[in-house]
Amino acid sequence: MKILVINGANLNLLGKRNPEIYGSFTLLDLQTKMTSLANELNIEIGFEQTNSESKIIDLIHFANDNFDGIILNAGAYTHTSIAIRDAIEAIEKPVIEVHISNIFSREEFRHHSYISSVSVGIISGFGFNSYLLALRALYDIVKN
Amino acid sequence: MKILVINGANLNLLGKRNPEIYGSFTLLDLQTKMTSLANELNIEIGFEQTNSESKIIDLIHFANDNFDGIILNAGAYTHTSIAIRDAIEAIEKPVIEVHISNIFSREEFRHHSYISSVSVGIISGFGFNSYLLALRALYDIVKN
Amino acid sequence: MKILVINGANLNLLGKRNPEIYGSFTLLDLQTKMTSLANELNIEIGFEQTNSESKIIDLIHFANDNFDGIILNAGAYTHTSIAIRDAIEAIEKPVIEVHISNIFSREEFRHHSYISSVSVGIISGFGFNSYLLALRALYDIVKN
Amino acid sequence: MKILVINGANLNLLGKRNPEIYGSFTLLDLQTKMTSLANELNIEIGFEQTNSESKIIDLIHFANDNFDGIILNAGAYTHTSIAIRDAIEAIEKPVIEVHISNIFSREEFRHHSYISSVSVGIISGFGFNSYLLALRALYDIVKN
Amino acid sequence: MKILVINGANLNLLGKRNPEIYGSFTLLDLQTKMTSLANELNIEIGFEQTNSESKIIDLIHFANDNFDGIILNAGAYTHTSIAIRDAIEAIEKPVIEVHISNIFSREEFRHHSYISSVSVGIISGFGFNSYLLALRALYDIVKN
Amino acid sequence: MKILVINGANLNLLGKRNPEIYGSFTLLDLQTKMTSLANELNIEIGFEQTNSESKIIDLIHFANDNFDGIILNAGAYTHTSIAIRDAIEAIEKPVIEVHISNIFSREEFRHHSYISSVSVGIISGFGFNSYLLALRALYDIVKN
Amino acid sequence: MKILVINGANLNLLGKRNPEIYGSFTLLDLQTKMTSLANELNIEIGFEQTNSESKIIDLIHFANDNFDGIILNAGAYTHTSIAIRDAIEAIEKPVIEVHISNIFSREEFRHHSYISSVSVGIISGFGFNSYLLALRALYDIVKN
Amino acid sequence: MKILVINGANLNLLGKRNPEIYGSFTLLDLQTKMTSLANELNIEIGFEQTNSESKIIDLIHFANDNFDGIILNAGAYTHTSIAIRDAIEAIEKPVIEVHISNIFSREEFRHHSYISSVSVGIISGFGFNSYLLALRALYDIVKN
Amino acid sequence: MKILVINGANLNLLGKRNPEIYGSFTLLDLQTKMTSLANELNIEIGFEQTNSESKIIDLIHFANDNFDGIILNAGAYTHTSIAIRDAIEAIEKPVIEVHISNIFSREEFRHHSYISSVSVGIISGFGFNSYLLALRALYDIVKN
Amino acid sequence: MKILVINGANLNLLGKRNPEIYGSFTLLDLQTKMTSLANELNIEIGFEQTNSESKIIDLIHFANDNFDGIILNAGAYTHTSIAIRDAIEAIEKPVIEVHISNIFSREEFRHHSYISSVSVGIISGFGFNSYLLALRALYDIVKN
Amino acid sequence: MKILVINGANLNLLGKRNPEIYGSFTLLDLQTKMTSLANELNIEIGFEQTNSESKIIDLIHFANDNFDGIILNAGAYTHTSIAIRDAIEAIEKPVIEVHISNIFSREEFRHHSYISSVSVGIISGFGFNSYLLALRALYDIVKN
Amino acid sequence: MKILVINGANLNLLGKRNPEIYGSFTLLDLQTKMTSLANELNIEIGFEQTNSESKIIDLIHFANDNFDGIILNAGAYTHTSIAIRDAIEAIEKPVIEVHISNIFSREEFRHHSYISSVSVGIISGFGFNSYLLALRALYDIVKN
Repeated sequence: MKILVINGANLNLLGKRNPEIYGSFTLLDLQTKMTSLANELNIEIGFEQTNSESKIIDLIHFANDNFDGIILNAGAYTHTSIAIRDAIEAIEKPVIEVHISNIFSREEFRHHSYISSVSVGIISGFGFNSYLLALRALYDIVKN
Repeated sequence: MKILVINGANLNLLGKRNPEIYGSFTLLDLQTKMTSLANELNIEIGFEQTNSESKIIDLIHFANDNFDGIILNAGAYTHTSIAIRDAIEAIEKPVIEVHISNIFSREEFRHHSYISSVSVGIISGFGFNSYLLALRALYDIVKN
Repeated sequence: MKILVINGANLNLLGKRNPEIYGSFTLLDLQTKMTSLANELNIEIGFEQTNSESKIIDLIHFANDNFDGIILNAGAYTHTSIAIRDAIEAIEKPVIEVHISNIFSREEFRHHSYISSVSVGIISGFGFNSYLLALRALYDIVKN
Repeated sequence: MKILVINGANLNLLGKRNPEIYGSFTLLDLQTKMTSLANELNIEIGFEQTNSESKIIDLIHFANDNFDGIILNAGAYTHTSIAIRDAIEAIEKPVIEVHISNIFSREEFRHHSYISSVSVGIISGFGFNSYLLALRALYDIVKN
Repeated sequence: MKILVINGANLNLLGKRNPEIYGSFTLLDLQTKMTSLANELNIEIGFEQTNSESKIIDLIHFANDNFDGIILNAGAYTHTSIAIRDAIEAIEKPVIEVHISNIFSREEFRHHSYISSVSVGIISGFGFNSYLLALRALYDIVKN
Repeated sequence: MKILVINGANLNLLGKRNPEIYGSFTLLDLQTKMTSLANELNIEIGFEQTNSESKIIDLIHFANDNFDGIILNAGAYTHTSIAIRDAIEAIEKPVIEVHISNIFSREEFRHHSYISSVSVGIISGFGFNSYLLALRALYDIVKN
Repeated sequence: MKILVINGANLNLLGKRNPEIYGSFTLLDLQTKMTSLANELNIEIGFEQTNSESKIIDLIHFANDNFDGIILNAGAYTHTSIAIRDAIEAIEKPVIEVHISNIFSREEFRHHSYISSVSVGIISGFGFNSYLLALRALYDIVKN
Repeated sequence: MKILVINGANLNLLGKRNPEIYGSFTLLDLQTKMTSLANELNIEIGFEQTNSESKIIDLIHFANDNFDGIILNAGAYTHTSIAIRDAIEAIEKPVIEVHISNIFSREEFRHHSYISSVSVGIISGFGFNSYLLALRALYDIVKN
Repeated sequence: MKILVINGANLNLLGKRNPEIYGSFTLLDLQTKMTSLANELNIEIGFEQTNSESKIIDLIHFANDNFDGIILNAGAYTHTSIAIRDAIEAIEKPVIEVHISNIFSREEFRHHSYISSVSVGIISGFGFNSYLLALRALYDIVKN
Repeated sequence: MKILVINGANLNLLGKRNPEIYGSFTLLDLQTKMTSLANELNIEIGFEQTNSESKIIDLIHFANDNFDGIILNAGAYTHTSIAIRDAIEAIEKPVIEVHISNIFSREEFRHHSYISSVSVGIISGFGFNSYLLALRALYDIVKN
Repeated sequence: MKILVINGANLNLLGKRNPEIYGSFTLLDLQTKMTSLANELNIEIGFEQTNSESKIIDLIHFANDNFDGIILNAGAYTHTSIAIRDAIEAIEKPVIEVHISNIFSREEFRHHSYISSVSVGIISGFGFNSYLLALRALYDIVKN
Repeated sequence: MKILVINGANLNLLGKRNPEIYGSFTLLDLQTKMTSLANELNIEIGFEQTNSESKIIDLIHFANDNFDGIILNAGAYTHTSIAIRDAIEAIEKPVIEVHISNIFSREEFRHHSYISSVSVGIISGFGFNSYLLALRALYDIVKN
């Protein structure tokens, strides 16, 4: 089983940015934790970060041919990108939307997601654990 | 570790109601699955269902003194009850909001939750697996 | 044929409350009139009043197993309860929404009903006659 | 007793248009059914259909001098015509608003009616039966 | 100088309808009063009433070739007709919008006029005097 | 008969400001024209201009004891002052709202007036003639 | 004179919940303070707390027959319950709405109250003193 | 193949009205151009103009039995008429919505069309060419 | 202890204006009643009325240096003045917002107050008693 | 004559994505069809697809110096990109907005286009034919 | 060159009010700093502060005849005063809007300015430096 | 001291695009002017332009490690990009938002900026001088 993890805008700053919201671990720490669980579940993971909306779209297209599912934290594009939504809607592989922080306890403009309604499910607010839970969830979906 | 699972309005109909959305398993099936994972994690779980808003509030108050955390699927009260929100805000124990279906791909009036901003996190769209993932997530939170 | 009539919040005050809107007859008068027409149509009717949202939900669930249809005046819950809406949507028996007064000629917040879109039909503004017309309408629906 | 039945825009297509919403009976079938019940109740009915907003207004004015009440299905003008509303408000005879389908389970723009607040009452969702129930209701109102 | 006075929907009921708002004088009384002032100012007036939106449009088109200006009380079409607005915008002769009652002290939906922004000016709230003042105003405009 | 004319914010600039909207005549020119018509109708007029909201309120209070009616062009306070509205509502003498330009063909925020619904009537768009027409209208109202 | 004090959702947590907003005194402390002032004014008070919307409605109905007035802090139901509003509107005894904290300096969704417009008056923001002031105010109203 | 071209409100003024928006050609010029292209494509065209909403509805109904498709420029009714929308939805023949000017670069209230969502397609902004393009498009649709 | 009472726009008309809302007592009557209670509580009160927004601001600034607290009825400025809000926010002395009538049962535009969220508390709807209750409340606050 | 065709986000998936909306032909099929018509009209076409908003902007800038006009299907950027709008507004060459599907019969958020008001015209809903019609339209515009 | 600096509501409290937002320097300190830079640039400055909306209008009118430009911090009137906007629009001299704090990072109701669209430019968020930058900017504008 | 100047979408067209809004100078002219002032203030400036949202984000991240502050004109991304906002919020170096034109006197959708609330300050409307003033302002901020 192959899963692609896509991290969007500003997530390269993890561990440096707003530690009171995101904690002090870095994207590399996240990758390490995910790889560890992936090994345990016998999943092969790809792991990408980009600040570019179009790059995220390209990755989603690419994943449709090369992976069994996607874990997507689109960052701020979550709230503004219909193009990413269309990409998810266009492919056949399941996508899970994750967020590190609880987006519903932040600014009003972060409460709406263009991505949620075309994702299989949403996991938000558990720090890095959001990704690990998503990995387990996607594992169960793909397996069935 | 003790966790209380609260199911709100109409969830007693699980397995009978809108199977295209909720599947054909019953609340008892859910309880069985949760108990199984709880045993594995050495968690003691309480499991309640009620159609009453005030009963949910009472259970949240009660849990604050007798449990280490709450997994809450408030059903339709999610979208209308500020009173349940206040109960969550008032207690010290962590609450995770779960939904069986992806509420963001349903009617507009189900996209807003009064509960999300005072919960630790949200898991929505994975069927019964939403609860199992929440159990894992709450386990990690309480443990730390 | 068995029909359940459910009266919601504050309808126990009928005949005492705002007579310029609801007239001076009581809930008992209504029950008498309905029983009379029900006998004529050979319908057995149940007749309940409650101020509790959850009690209404329980009655709707109960009716699904024990009655052929429901006539529902949810009172103010009409405008605020998604939980009652979900109960109606979840059962298989037809529900008719009735109102004594014309809700569209009252305050703005009474113009929206969460119940209308999941009911078979709406009858509003004819005093007690709203219920009698609903009884005839439900009779025709159930008979077919 | 004399009752005028007014059918508005596109209702001449009844039985041909959107049968999944309106059924397969025609306006003539409706007239036949209404005449039958009218005879039973000793009511003389007029029966008009027009696609013209102004013609509906003229008919309402005319009815005020020549009929005891009006049953009005204004079709799409229900949602856009303040002029028809003013006509109803201006006359002294009672008007009942009817709809074949349940307008509240259709598009958002069909949920608002300019006519409801100046009508005696509303009956919506019972197919042709909406008209027959309205005839009974109007009979009781005019009789008193 | 030739002026066309156009009265729209339901104004044929003047003197019979809502006397607490419009007074007890009829459209004929209005015509008499206007003719009297018109004679004094040496104006020839045309005087039309129609319940039809399209008839109003036709009259506006007609007036452009045969009159020097228009006094228009479009009734309820004031609030809903972009087509009448377009007719006014398309012609070269000045149009004055008049209302018998003060539309701003009535229902919210009467506060917006599609016609005001393309009219020369608005006179509202003076009963029949609104028309007489409009005649004087139009006289001054056309004269210059 | 005594009439008070009140001109509000920035109207002292008449003739200097935005001549494409207000023309090139000054406030003094307006006063001259009004005095002339007032003499003709045997009316005594007071004529005030102020940029102060509270001064307008004071003048309205004062007019209630010393004049038979008010012609008010509140300028921009028309759109923002509930306090002036309350002053008009509190007194017993009739107030006519006038505007030189057609406020409905200007910016959106000039389309709402707090004053209209408590005034006897509105005259807008006729340049200085708005005031002269208002004088005639008020004359008729006070006379009766 | 007999006054009923009704405390709604989550007020049983007073003194434990959000002490920075509500202070550290308990509901029992409040009852003691109120009883003391009631004795001074020769008032007999009833004192109830419930998390249930329907129980509040029942208490309001009950109070109409057994008390001279009501002091109501409905908690979060203040912002969501039209049913409680209807109960207040239906009875003849005066109701005063009280709040411990200043609801207008909290979240947006707490700024609207369905109860205010049917209450005699509102007292908000003075801690327990809100209730004591309400008792004095109700005393004066009932006495007259 | 037979195509009906329907032109709505105020389009009889083409060539006289707002030439900066619509150009200086008349409706007759349009008919000539369309006939020419129709001949080339071997299409028989009907060509109607009316200022009446109900006449447009009647024409749409009529076309359903006598033509293979409709090209509709409803003028201002585009933005206000649900009745025309219903007529289009009710028939089986394809309808193309056309506009001479680019309605999206004009007033806000011209940006919404009730007709677009039930039309096959929209062509807007190309002057008379909008109609000629629509003729080609409809030709291809009907042919297949 | 020194308390300043500030009355805003139109309150000089008390006893003359809308007696059905405000009663028939005058501002002088209010001052007399307040002085009497102030003497009892050993409070020295200042008592001001002004129709000017800026005068209210000046008084608030002045009070900060010369009084221990403010009772403010800003009249209509309550709903429109951010400047008064800023003045309250800028000073250190407590301000209580009072209203004679229940502003929540009046027009929609009186339901929002810019002042509430920066005041200590609100008392609304008790006639002159609103001020007397505010005096007691402020006494307790300043004393502590 | 040289025309640039720009296809935006996700249009590389044409023929694979949502065939019920877009049909089963690919972007290459479209290019073939366009080239064929272009040859017929003696037009040289450029043909680009990109998922990147900034790439679209660059192409528009580039086209201004190297092409005579643009046919643009910006995909989802249509609804979100003010930057593309500004690019169109900044250049001198005409742009036609095309859509394969009828965007007005899809989700609400696809009904608004930032691009329409700065385009020459819009063609939407005719499948690949939308592009061919646009080519003809642009040919006529550039030729003149 | 002569520049008038106008400071509006509550700015007399500078240095005393909300030091966390405005710093601890006073209006006099500001005047000193501005005078120093003005001398350097050979500008003569006037410096006014008032809490009165009408006084600001008077000053703007006055400046039109006696100064070459205005630097305006209207305080809270920025967000509520159309009258000040009109004054700026009416004069010919350039006005620069300044704010000490960043108004866009404060409450929602401070995000809209009636003044911005009629000012030459806006400088916000730099403390006293906002004024000094404005002086430089105005110097350049007037000089040219 | 090192300052990075970032210019966003379409600013490469400066001097060619909408000269009535932006003037006829090019981006190179701006760079020259800024370099000149920078030299005077002993600042080293970087100067970048890009049409890409993600490139702007990358530049902001880069600047955090290599510059002392940022002057940002994000062009149209100002109004749509939460991702750029997050980048600014995430870094520690001060950012000043600048605009050449007065964005508040342009289209409604340009009045909201996602960037303003996380910037130190805003300078808008002074042409190229906006940048020069920003340079001075940033110099003062960084120096302290």
